[in-house]
Amino acid sequence: MAVDKRMEALFKPQSVAIIGASTNPAKWGFNFTLHLTHGGYRGACYPINPAGGEILGHRAYKSILDVPGEIDLAFILIPPEAAVSALADCGKKGIRACVVVTAGFGELGGQGESLQRSLCEIAREAGIAMVGPNCAGITSPEPMSLYCTMQPNFPPSGHIAIFSQSGNIGGSIQRVCEKHDIGISRFASTGNESVLTSSDYLNYFAEDEQTKVVVGYVEGISDGRRFFDVARQLTRKKPLVLMKAGRSVVGANAAKSHTGALAGSDAVFKALCRQCGIIRVSSIDEMFDVATAFLAQPLPRGSRVGIVANGGGWGVLTADACIAAGLDVAPLPEETLQALDNRLPAWWNRQNPVDLVGGISRGSFFKAVEALAKSDSLDGVIALGFGYASSIASVFRNAPGLGSTGDRIAKDMLASDMRGLNFILDVIEQSGKPVVLASENAVGADRDGNEAILTFRKKGVIVYPSPDRAANVFAKMYEYQRYLTAVAGSGDGNLRAGGQTDE
Amino acid sequence: MAVDKRMEALFKPQSVAIIGASTNPAKWGFNFTLHLTHGGYRGACYPINPAGGEILGHRAYKSILDVPGEIDLAFILIPPEAAVSALADCGKKGIRACVVVTAGFGELGGQGESLQRSLCEIAREAGIAMVGPNCAGITSPEPMSLYCTMQPNFPPSGHIAIFSQSGNIGGSIQRVCEKHDIGISRFASTGNESVLTSSDYLNYFAEDEQTKVVVGYVEGISDGRRFFDVARQLTRKKPLVLMKAGRSVVGANAAKSHTGALAGSDAVFKALCRQCGIIRVSSIDEMFDVATAFLAQPLPRGSRVGIVANGGGWGVLTADACIAAGLDVAPLPEETLQALDNRLPAWWNRQNPVDLVGGISRGSFFKAVEALAKSDSLDGVIALGFGYASSIASVFRNAPGLGSTGDRIAKDMLASDMRGLNFILDVIEQSGKPVVLASENAVGADRDGNEAILTFRKKGVIVYPSPDRAANVFAKMYEYQRYLTAVAGSGDGNLRAGGQTDE
Repeated sequence: MAVDKRMEALFKPQSVAIIGASTNPAKWGFNFTLHLTHGGYRGACYPINPAGGEILGHRAYKSILDVPGEIDLAFILIPPEAAVSALADCGKKGIRACVVVTAGFGELGGQGESLQRSLCEIAREAGIAMVGPNCAGITSPEPMSLYCTMQPNFPPSGHIAIFSQSGNIGGSIQRVCEKHDIGISRFASTGNESVLTSSDYLNYFAEDEQTKVVVGYVEGISDGRRFFDVARQLTRKKPLVLMKAGRSVVGANAAKSHTGALAGSDAVFKALCRQCGIIRVSSIDEMFDVATAFLAQPLPRGSRVGIVANGGGWGVLTADACIAAGLDVAPLPEETLQALDNRLPAWWNRQNPVDLVGGISRGSFFKAVEALAKSDSLDGVIALGFGYASSIASVFRNAPGLGSTGDRIAKDMLASDMRGLNFILDVIEQSGKPVVLASENAVGADRDGNEAILTFRKKGVIVYPSPDRAANVFAKMYEYQRYLTAVAGSGDGNLRAGGQTDE
Repeated sequence: MAVDKRMEALFKPQSVAIIGASTNPAKWGFNFTLHLTHGGYRGACYPINPAGGEILGHRAYKSILDVPGEIDLAFILIPPEAAVSALADCGKKGIRACVVVTAGFGELGGQGESLQRSLCEIAREAGIAMVGPNCAGITSPEPMSLYCTMQPNFPPSGHIAIFSQSGNIGGSIQRVCEKHDIGISRFASTGNESVLTSSDYLNYFAEDEQTKVVVGYVEGISDGRRFFDVARQLTRKKPLVLMKAGRSVVGANAAKSHTGALAGSDAVFKALCRQCGIIRVSSIDEMFDVATAFLAQPLPRGSRVGIVANGGGWGVLTADACIAAGLDVAPLPEETLQALDNRLPAWWNRQNPVDLVGGISRGSFFKAVEALAKSDSLDGVIALGFGYASSIASVFRNAPGLGSTGDRIAKDMLASDMRGLNFILDVIEQSGKPVVLASENAVGADRDGNEAILTFRKKGVIVYPSPDRAANVFAKMYEYQRYLTAVAGSGDGNLRAGGQTDE
């Protein structure tokens, strides 16, 4: 399918102009130029400022019309009236994509609304794909390393596409990804959506090969029928994870003043999401959890979860959370019990959740994960407590009276978690079932640098910091699988969510 | 009220014996000795091992009876039958507190149950305060720097007391505190509770001056009447935050095999919690959020929340979350609107949530917080987006072509957040109202070291990483305040939760 060239100009621009670029750090025109530069943009950058001169190492032009070469994408940061003229100049210059960052349009009503109508008319006449107004910018690591947003967010390149009707929530999602070294493919802060709407971004992301999972934050949908049509097409190929705000009356009013969006009935929205296979989430953390699981794990064919815990409490919490999420903590058949008997110390509890009762031997844990994944009575595993050996490695290193023995033990400890990590990756690959991980050792893993957990992350597998989050992730993966199965009618069931199909 | 000397021996021991201490890193007897040593225990440490010799720099004794001096506290890590004899020896030695870490007792039924009965008889006859069996140890930073648990957890000294029927959940709670530099006063892994029960720890924490907030994880309560009696006394003085597992049938069965606890009816439990002013939470993160808020913030007198956001999306999400939590996102009276008009740029949205529409001036944000806190129509504030200036400081530092100007700007940025931070602390102090903070800049703050957010944390104030968590914290603080007001009958309402009263 042909991709609209104007959307390509937006996400893969060879050259960018910043209208309102500034040397004054108190202005957004400085920050956008700074972030674009800091992000290592690979194309030509043209700051536009009536004073000319140089801005952050780039020659500044007094007008967009003075720039010698072609421009693919322009960011407009100047006050509303001037922004309207600047957009007209962009049209004259033949620019195909513009991002109007400036606020003070439709969301204010009155004069703002009328100015917004002017923007629309200009964009339509000139054939400009216009983002905003009242938005926070664009990120698109490939192919041009484009980081041009209000917030200083520089997530690595990857496969999550983000669209957001809120700039700061979009920034938050990017930040969560960045902090976990999880890459994104595209980010668009959609603003008031007076020309390009959420549906347009969805449409682009559906075809974008760099994108394997789409996440979005919306407050209201102006073109509901089209949005859900596009979503229905997209979800056959890749998951769409959506957060919808304005569920309460107060929230809906706040949304109206924020982007002028009308939140509409939440019950209707919910029903439409279910019909279209959209996975709905209610927080930024949950959005991140679910998106990363879709990228890293095969989908569970059913709701039967095997749980293995190194100590009991996390197992109990996970069981509670699974049941609350509609999953089935299935009894283990005799065959699986025997497989576990052969692998575990005698005192294991012989039920699901499998409780290793604080056995210090790490091998048992990984063998239990394998036995559960192999069981025909289970559709996937939740494994709790990974990374213990790594977490005590630092204690061994500093142990008094141990000297080089301590270092050796620390090294062995790390190596044992690393072997386990690769073993689990093999289990996922060979069983075709998800193994969702949660561990107390993942809490604050950034800081103490639990090496095993950071290594898992580098391979795209997030070890979640609490049992309820792991259970929720499993439930959402199952929800999507159920939808795909229903759609397929027959059940080409075990599609790896992140992979694209040929259809 | 006199504190039981045996509980003092448990939490403030001058000397500790580890029965089953080992030089073999694959044994818990090594790990416990290692953690005790690594934690900088200030008293005498006596490893006990039939082989004698030296363990991690401490002289080992063949039997507890060979130790020359007095022993306050013994940890028992040897197999069940041997543990029973060791406890008897502890009685002979006159030890007042013992922690039986060993598993394989009541939770297994049969022979295990009978061995557990033997432990109880010995403990009762010898007057030993016995923790466990089947537990993960004790942490008590003051006064002896006692860190003696399975997990390598070394949280700083502080004011949160933790009791947990699960060792690994107790470890998780400690780890969350440690990673956020939030101190704890005590931690007890209560295990099978065959002698000391959760009620005993609660009773001790109620009187413990080091403890200002109590958090607990329970799977089942054996002495329900006493537990709720003690809890009722405690919650008049300090908050009790409780997580109860085994809500589902599967979870309850798992709990039974875990610690032998009977989970009982969740509905009954819930009603009793409400009657006793116990704040119930459902995850480790939530427990941490609520406990830290109780320590840092005055309680809101009512449910009316003022919200201020630097951009709109977080405000909308917070409004939704507040409404869902039963709070009131109250309309702003004319007086407050005018106060805000005087402080904010002209384009602010003139409603609650207050949306500064991406204004880059940081001063407006802090002034808005102050105006809301001063309003008689509001009981507290949720402020969103703190730390932006600090988060871009690092971008400025590396900005090409800026040189020393970039450094200066970075420094100014940091200074502006620091001023804001102190301003907010003053607002809390002077208004006597909570200002709960959430910010995207708090996500992964460990790693990028957002200085302003880390500084807030050092002062005990957590900036939460998502709006829903801030709203939930406010709701739980209000829930506790409502309980206190009802109990007081009159309303000595605005008790700072962490502070002890004279009653």
